[in-house]
Amino acid sequence: MKTIDEYRVIIESEIKKLSFPGGKFSSLYAPIEYALSAGGKRIRPVLTLMAADAFGNDINPAVIPAIGLETFHNFTLLHDDVMDKSDIRRGRQTVHKKYGENSAILSGDTMLTLASQYIAQVGDAILRNVIETFNSMAIKVYEGQQLDMDFEDLDKIATSDYIEMISNKTGALIGACAKIGALIGGASEIDADKMYEFGLQTGIAFQIQDDWLDTFGDSSTFGKTIGGDINNAKKTYLYVSALEHDSQTAKALREAFQIPAGDVRVKAVTRIYEKMGIDESAKKSVNHYSSLALKALNATSLPDDKKEAFRKFAEKLIGRKK
Amino acid sequence: MKTIDEYRVIIESEIKKLSFPGGKFSSLYAPIEYALSAGGKRIRPVLTLMAADAFGNDINPAVIPAIGLETFHNFTLLHDDVMDKSDIRRGRQTVHKKYGENSAILSGDTMLTLASQYIAQVGDAILRNVIETFNSMAIKVYEGQQLDMDFEDLDKIATSDYIEMISNKTGALIGACAKIGALIGGASEIDADKMYEFGLQTGIAFQIQDDWLDTFGDSSTFGKTIGGDINNAKKTYLYVSALEHDSQTAKALREAFQIPAGDVRVKAVTRIYEKMGIDESAKKSVNHYSSLALKALNATSLPDDKKEAFRKFAEKLIGRKK
Repeated sequence: MKTIDEYRVIIESEIKKLSFPGGKFSSLYAPIEYALSAGGKRIRPVLTLMAADAFGNDINPAVIPAIGLETFHNFTLLHDDVMDKSDIRRGRQTVHKKYGENSAILSGDTMLTLASQYIAQVGDAILRNVIETFNSMAIKVYEGQQLDMDFEDLDKIATSDYIEMISNKTGALIGACAKIGALIGGASEIDADKMYEFGLQTGIAFQIQDDWLDTFGDSSTFGKTIGGDINNAKKTYLYVSALEHDSQTAKALREAFQIPAGDVRVKAVTRIYEKMGIDESAKKSVNHYSSLALKALNATSLPDDKKEAFRKFAEKLIGRKK
Repeated sequence: MKTIDEYRVIIESEIKKLSFPGGKFSSLYAPIEYALSAGGKRIRPVLTLMAADAFGNDINPAVIPAIGLETFHNFTLLHDDVMDKSDIRRGRQTVHKKYGENSAILSGDTMLTLASQYIAQVGDAILRNVIETFNSMAIKVYEGQQLDMDFEDLDKIATSDYIEMISNKTGALIGACAKIGALIGGASEIDADKMYEFGLQTGIAFQIQDDWLDTFGDSSTFGKTIGGDINNAKKTYLYVSALEHDSQTAKALREAFQIPAGDVRVKAVTRIYEKMGIDESAKKSVNHYSSLALKALNATSLPDDKKEAFRKFAEKLIGRKK
């Protein structure tokens, strides 16, 4: 097995090699090249390569499908950014801001079909399973995004519904990345499904941790401004589970969110979270989903040194210091 | 073989049987049910059923893939209507007008993946070919839509570029419908490719005929108001080929389009088209692409009575009275 960074470098270099039609079609493909060149951690295709390597000792047949999964991920970002009216992603203009909304829609559609084409570049024996895994995952991602949008207009969201949303929107794709890599590596269906579970639960833990970091993280290592979610009144795991606590706290929390966005609001909300122990309960939740991920991983037939590589991946992703 | 109407009735009834998740996901699926229930001629899935019937004497295995192709078609309408800001389709509000733009984007994405799922419900022996045909077609459709959008800002478009645009945007899907039906019916790859060609050329002829009807048709049988394209300054086959004629006519045409939308403009533009013989040359072009379609059909190994069914389909679609 290689290191996570080594897999990432391979993905970066293969993405650079992709070539798209230019000339009269450049207005369709330039936004795609722009989106795919934004960098990022590439955790999804890295996981696909890792799984193919762990089960099959060969990453080559997984490279194009892995890029398919990264292309799918970026397609969802293009369309989500239109829906959320986000102007900035990874420090650059979003596609719809730079090229216009119609381009973001149509180039996004093109990326979804390109992703299907890349994904289908696997052997006949696993083609149907890979395609079905990919398509079912995509449906889950849309359902998750729909829940996320619906939540914006809801006054109260059950924590279990929030978990379902992030399980669909974030977990399913990471699960599919692990499963498709495993299938390409020749894993049994049982092992491949356990790898899906590993990715799914890791994704859920990652998302809750991300919510936690936004309020309780160290801005020097988090890379974003602390309190962004509070200032944007985002319905995070912290917010949703705090509202479920008791009616008095819920009232205090709603009042704190009436304070104009800024440090005063961030401090007020954070204080309520701390008073209620949301800090600790969110961490427990991260640990809970991390344990489910590791349990699934441990149940695979992989030898322990390969399991260890995935443990490191999950640890790095979730950023959990033991 | 059944009649075109009989195939259409089967498609209508199977679409009614589709069931989508409700409850918390109803905001994602209601726009899809709304879009699919709009009716229309269902020419694409009808062609798929016909081709499966002609080559395999069995429509059953083609029904779900045929609905996949109709779902794909409706997905493109959802997104095109957002991009074109169209408010009305088939006499009803467009999806983005009724449910909002975000719904049209996300439910459209979901329809594209549903289409992939339906299309993949074919036997192992043809799975890869069917998926590749579907995905390549989809890419062509996006490229066609991009050209169509780019044309809006161009002063002059070569007729050959216009043909390329409609070949991609309209022809490729009709071609894929015929080919995928043929493959499901057990056609050889050679026959399936000829059926693709039949559908492709029929689609091009259909689109030029549609442009012709909008200006020269009989409003009682056309079903739309005559002159709509002229009033919307749409870059049709007539307009594009007229501009290529000579610089003096081009100048007169541009001036006629300066007249405010209304009967005076429609009459002025129509008179120029007639003076230049665009009426006749467009008809010739329809005949040209129709002949190419029939040539491809004739080259298949189908018995003549089955070829005759497809001839009738093309005639009905193009509405050409011999």
